[in-house]
Amino acid sequence: MTHGAPRGARQALDRQPLAYLVASIRGVGQVDLQPQLLTGAFILAALWAAGWKVGLFATLGTLIATATAYLLDVDRGSISQGLQGYSGCLTGIALVTFLGNHLATYILAVVGCAVTTVLTASLAVLLKPYGLTPLTAPFCLVSGVMVLGAPSFERIWHGAPSPVANPTRGDTGITFSDLWHAFFTNVSQVFLVNSWYVGLIMLVGLAFAGVRVVLAAALGSIAGIFAAWALGAPTAQIADGIYGYNSVLVAIAVGAVFLADTPWNAGYALLGAALATGLTAAITSLFKPFHGHTFTWPFILTTWALMAAVPLLPRLRAAEAG
Amino acid sequence: MTHGAPRGARQALDRQPLAYLVASIRGVGQVDLQPQLLTGAFILAALWAAGWKVGLFATLGTLIATATAYLLDVDRGSISQGLQGYSGCLTGIALVTFLGNHLATYILAVVGCAVTTVLTASLAVLLKPYGLTPLTAPFCLVSGVMVLGAPSFERIWHGAPSPVANPTRGDTGITFSDLWHAFFTNVSQVFLVNSWYVGLIMLVGLAFAGVRVVLAAALGSIAGIFAAWALGAPTAQIADGIYGYNSVLVAIAVGAVFLADTPWNAGYALLGAALATGLTAAITSLFKPFHGHTFTWPFILTTWALMAAVPLLPRLRAAEAG
Amino acid sequence: MTHGAPRGARQALDRQPLAYLVASIRGVGQVDLQPQLLTGAFILAALWAAGWKVGLFATLGTLIATATAYLLDVDRGSISQGLQGYSGCLTGIALVTFLGNHLATYILAVVGCAVTTVLTASLAVLLKPYGLTPLTAPFCLVSGVMVLGAPSFERIWHGAPSPVANPTRGDTGITFSDLWHAFFTNVSQVFLVNSWYVGLIMLVGLAFAGVRVVLAAALGSIAGIFAAWALGAPTAQIADGIYGYNSVLVAIAVGAVFLADTPWNAGYALLGAALATGLTAAITSLFKPFHGHTFTWPFILTTWALMAAVPLLPRLRAAEAG
Repeated sequence: MTHGAPRGARQALDRQPLAYLVASIRGVGQVDLQPQLLTGAFILAALWAAGWKVGLFATLGTLIATATAYLLDVDRGSISQGLQGYSGCLTGIALVTFLGNHLATYILAVVGCAVTTVLTASLAVLLKPYGLTPLTAPFCLVSGVMVLGAPSFERIWHGAPSPVANPTRGDTGITFSDLWHAFFTNVSQVFLVNSWYVGLIMLVGLAFAGVRVVLAAALGSIAGIFAAWALGAPTAQIADGIYGYNSVLVAIAVGAVFLADTPWNAGYALLGAALATGLTAAITSLFKPFHGHTFTWPFILTTWALMAAVPLLPRLRAAEAG
Repeated sequence: MTHGAPRGARQALDRQPLAYLVASIRGVGQVDLQPQLLTGAFILAALWAAGWKVGLFATLGTLIATATAYLLDVDRGSISQGLQGYSGCLTGIALVTFLGNHLATYILAVVGCAVTTVLTASLAVLLKPYGLTPLTAPFCLVSGVMVLGAPSFERIWHGAPSPVANPTRGDTGITFSDLWHAFFTNVSQVFLVNSWYVGLIMLVGLAFAGVRVVLAAALGSIAGIFAAWALGAPTAQIADGIYGYNSVLVAIAVGAVFLADTPWNAGYALLGAALATGLTAAITSLFKPFHGHTFTWPFILTTWALMAAVPLLPRLRAAEAG
Repeated sequence: MTHGAPRGARQALDRQPLAYLVASIRGVGQVDLQPQLLTGAFILAALWAAGWKVGLFATLGTLIATATAYLLDVDRGSISQGLQGYSGCLTGIALVTFLGNHLATYILAVVGCAVTTVLTASLAVLLKPYGLTPLTAPFCLVSGVMVLGAPSFERIWHGAPSPVANPTRGDTGITFSDLWHAFFTNVSQVFLVNSWYVGLIMLVGLAFAGVRVVLAAALGSIAGIFAAWALGAPTAQIADGIYGYNSVLVAIAVGAVFLADTPWNAGYALLGAALATGLTAAITSLFKPFHGHTFTWPFILTTWALMAAVPLLPRLRAAEAG
């Protein structure tokens, strides 16, 4: 159960610094669990389209995390597939989003993204006995700790710049405009970006990773919207992608990466996408008293739970190891 | 370290739909870790005696969880012993207790109880390296998530109908009436039911599982009452079984199921029963800020901790694998 | 990856009750991960110098935990190295610090310190597959549960006597007096004691454990001070050792016990010491809503994360098994 990657062509690219750049671009795509160069490039372009701060910190984060992996002599195959960069990409975005564009944030980004690489190794060791992978947990842990601890430190904290909206109560009527906005922002909110056209560019990138991947992402987004609507979540938050980005990730991970291509597996992935939506509200309420953030925990926990169960549920079948 | 079950007679019952019904009745008894048919039947009767809502949702929950296990092709031996149904039984009761008797609650019960079956498989895989079993953790996780997330969703939430009392300060004088009420409600509160005669019927059911089982349940209840009184817990909550239901479960699990029948083991089980009482207050305070619920977490955590230690404590001895 | 201990001389001491006393004194030193008798003796003397209550409960806690290990027939080698006593030592101190010098506290100390021995075994089993050890987690769990649950029980709770200061905002200017106070109190706060000369005596004790150990402790303390200052933590808390005691422990554990003596490893240990400082603020904020306490969680979590990663980071090298 690896993230899967084209192992060919790797040898040719294994020359620094070209290999470093390629590995980093792939790292951006690996946030969506995809190693294809074009997928990573489109998603990176989308992040710059979301604003120079998001683009810059995403780029820096991925470069720092990947460089740390070279420095600590991590397995080259894993680096070249982009598996050492994706948590840094998200950590960079989260830090500038929650702490603002200050000098201290750049320093924290260097430290934080380097630490994601260490935690990626820790979690890989801890999860190996269960056949699970770290997913974006290193990002969630590092960003969670930094955002939680930041207000205690005078040199770090400059007030909260742009808090992400939290699930609360609100109007539940839904229009067609809400629906298609939600469909695309569910894809962009994976990267903490609330913008339908950023999500659209990302979907194009995912299409380069194959029909199955983009189909899983699209169906996951729809499953998330449906579940949030059926549960009675506030429309404003559905349209902003707050309830659906975890569904997109679960659908890609379970439906297009970790499990084989069967009808039962597809149903299991869509069930997981819907569950992740429900879990989003619980996690957000759980974290509220200590000002924690939901990040991609619902995706991580849902995917770990679903995948851990597979060996005892013969109806489902894991994908061939990539 | 399995829940133990009479493997004989299984073959004869392995014909649908009789096998399905038998497995479900056994599933009710497995909440108390007992596979005997009569034990399950008595406990189910007690649940209907507690009120039609509790009885109905307990029945539905067990049936749904067990049916999901058939659907996902889970090991038949495990299904027929009732090991796929007990978390569904408790989840059904918890949902109607906390969300009320609404259409949405029925739909959530179907989804939630099906998910307990998936989580039972996940936890079985995750805990296997340590020789531990999932106990009622799938119930605690699913019910915890649902109750925590529910107020965010307009179609789910109709206000809190009957919140279970939480440990707080209060009078600590104790009468004989308090004591015998506590003795029986400790047994019924395992199923979130506050009623001494429901606990009495359940004890009769446990007697059909053997002298050692009913003795462990009774001594566990007494240990829980003693510990709560010695610590100075409010009498009203002791009498309502709030401080003792986890003690009953620990005593049954450690004293009559997982460990062999020796004096040291018996002392260890009763120590665990008393510890679970103290842990109840801590867990309740821990969960209070985000409106979480204690459920059977004190039982689960105490039993996991005590059983994980056994291989390094030669004074204690695990039971022969059932 | 064991705490390491001189296995010689053990046989001679393996006669009760001398062996029991020696094991207990070593247990005090094992809080700092050192098995040397002189180290334990100096640290114990420092604890009595901190006040008779701290000294008494530290002594009782270590004796009770070690006696419980004999009673449960735990491996004699582990007992004689002091590995069964250190969590009891800290638990005793924590209980008298948070609950005050009452009869109930003595009874809780007996129960709590005995339970640390059971939890030491549980965690040893649970962590073994990852090559990790329990560190001071049994102390953190038992003390956390007791301090959290205590206000619910009338016979336990007599009001909070001397709450440890929590990281909050405050002046960040720093003087030379602040710096050297912080350097020593970082060492004493490992035992919840805020006193520079207690820290000084403890450092002398650590010197008997070898140059590398005392150097790691000193550099860890400096790294903690630097990180806290750089982040902008309030000076008063830096001087009181609140931000640095976890750094001291991480530096000893990672730098002088678990990893080999190489420049890369030393850098990794100091990075860890600085990270533990940042983590202190996050953990404290995390625990604040439910009145939990930070204890040595930042040390434990940082050390587990760093050590779990080592097998996948070839730049680093574990120490030869002691």
